[in-house]
Amino acid sequence: MSMHPEATVAPVEAHEPPYYVAVFTTVRTSHQLGYSDTNAHLEDLVQDVPGFLGMDHAQTPGGLSITVAYFRDADALTEWRRNAEHRAAQKRGQDEWYQSYTLHVAKVERSHGFTRAQVPQSSTAR
Amino acid sequence: MSMHPEATVAPVEAHEPPYYVAVFTTVRTSHQLGYSDTNAHLEDLVQDVPGFLGMDHAQTPGGLSITVAYFRDADALTEWRRNAEHRAAQKRGQDEWYQSYTLHVAKVERSHGFTRAQVPQSSTAR
Repeated sequence: MSMHPEATVAPVEAHEPPYYVAVFTTVRTSHQLGYSDTNAHLEDLVQDVPGFLGMDHAQTPGGLSITVAYFRDADALTEWRRNAEHRAAQKRGQDEWYQSYTLHVAKVERSHGFTRAQVPQSSTAR
Repeated sequence: MSMHPEATVAPVEAHEPPYYVAVFTTVRTSHQLGYSDTNAHLEDLVQDVPGFLGMDHAQTPGGLSITVAYFRDADALTEWRRNAEHRAAQKRGQDEWYQSYTLHVAKVERSHGFTRAQVPQSSTAR
């Protein structure tokens, strides 16, 4: 492996509960025309939702994709759920992009984060 | 569910709320000795927790790893949290395997799933 998971990648930080999390887990079809552009656009749009706290994403090549989005309250989630472009993308996703998916909306009761203490190094960024 | 499509990968199905979700998002270090074996062992162990509903996992190569585990109630989560081998693995994870992580424990208020209708094929399961 030539890729080093250094400080450039980190999870969205844990916030003070309560807040909301939406877990969106997908398996995609082989019909992905338009998916990347739409997804990138939605990732921009959601940033404008008041109360949006951040989003993490991971995808196993050829396997599951998990997107976890964090929101300050239920109103923020409702606004995002009602967004017209978001709804259009959901429709297209069901028609073309997704083999299967689940969505779980949940109220966070506790959370915590861990970040390794930095060890001084002679050379870091390169 | 009784009818499973022939897709080899699918998310854990949506259950009837309320239930609990634990979202564990990690970035790993370059020190991974013992990680795979421990992780596989824990994936076996958690199946024995009464109320464990299933687990999804995705990992972007060189990037974030997200594990989402579903539990029927808070007692199931508590039992898993107190499991001695689980605790030992958390300790080792902080010492060696994880650059950073977050854990969010949340009560699911609503959920749904989508599975694409199967198109008849000339040859399917064998």
